[in-house]
Amino acid sequence: MLSRVERGQHRILHPRPVYLIVSKHGDRVNVMAASWVTPVSEEPPRIALALDRETFTYRLVRGSGYFTVNVVGEDMVDAVWIAGTVSGEERDKVSLIGLRLADSEKVPVPHVEGCLGYIGARVWRTMDVGDAELVVADVVEAYADPSLFDPRKGWYLAKARVLLHGAGRVFTTTGRILYPSKRG
Amino acid sequence: MLSRVERGQHRILHPRPVYLIVSKHGDRVNVMAASWVTPVSEEPPRIALALDRETFTYRLVRGSGYFTVNVVGEDMVDAVWIAGTVSGEERDKVSLIGLRLADSEKVPVPHVEGCLGYIGARVWRTMDVGDAELVVADVVEAYADPSLFDPRKGWYLAKARVLLHGAGRVFTTTGRILYPSKRG
Repeated sequence: MLSRVERGQHRILHPRPVYLIVSKHGDRVNVMAASWVTPVSEEPPRIALALDRETFTYRLVRGSGYFTVNVVGEDMVDAVWIAGTVSGEERDKVSLIGLRLADSEKVPVPHVEGCLGYIGARVWRTMDVGDAELVVADVVEAYADPSLFDPRKGWYLAKARVLLHGAGRVFTTTGRILYPSKRG
Repeated sequence: MLSRVERGQHRILHPRPVYLIVSKHGDRVNVMAASWVTPVSEEPPRIALALDRETFTYRLVRGSGYFTVNVVGEDMVDAVWIAGTVSGEERDKVSLIGLRLADSEKVPVPHVEGCLGYIGARVWRTMDVGDAELVVADVVEAYADPSLFDPRKGWYLAKARVLLHGAGRVFTTTGRILYPSKRG
């Protein structure tokens, strides 16, 4: 029934939300796509992001110690694709994509205008986990569109079409809403 | 446009896949629901799981050093709800839910019969990240239903309805499939 998976084992844990990660150090700004992101603690609020050490984003995040995680809707699939496949080392990806960035409240890194919500994060600790560095970061600020998000109920899934990444060029978004029928 | 979010900031990073985590130490077996899970390295293959130290699963994982991450479809929403809201300390959740477990190949912890796929993991390192322990683990084995999963293309999203958790009682699954229109 089940078959052994030898390569691409990480794809078993997809589809998952794909975020735009904005980083800035000095006068350099970059944006990348990432879905290897998770909350890790509620109190204090912390998140983790697995970051390839070869990326320009890694260099900027190491330099400044800050980044923003931007939640985007299905309309941003082209922006996410370019952000995830072009290196920002030699090209100004923000201009290439035509993204507009807005200043964040407390973190010295902008967020994406038109995002559904974002988290501003400050690097707390990092851990070498193999071909990536696991960056654990404090949530310094968090913003969301109040017409789409409730702090206790999360995203209004009938309206907020959060973008998810399957594999390669395949993306998806949320579908029908499900409720458990039994008492917990 | 965007409003500050002070509480429930982690919900900004939902909906996300919700997995059944099976743990076993000695003759005690438990199952819990978790969505704070992410791949963190492709080579070597590693994943991370944020685990509340108060949970019975945490105790079993600490004891044995192994766990399985089971990907489930939308039909498992009731099982996931119970697994996520009842403590296995005093009740045998596996029986309560009516789950059937099957022996795994290499890891000494079973996986869920009827899952879409699973990863068998061995704890590599842990990090105290606040109210949870971040468990980074080696992928020891990975299995998936070949009629639903391709190692290079991931899940066939038109068929595999991976279960995602929004917040509280709200779950969802994947919806329409999206492709970027521009070249990367």
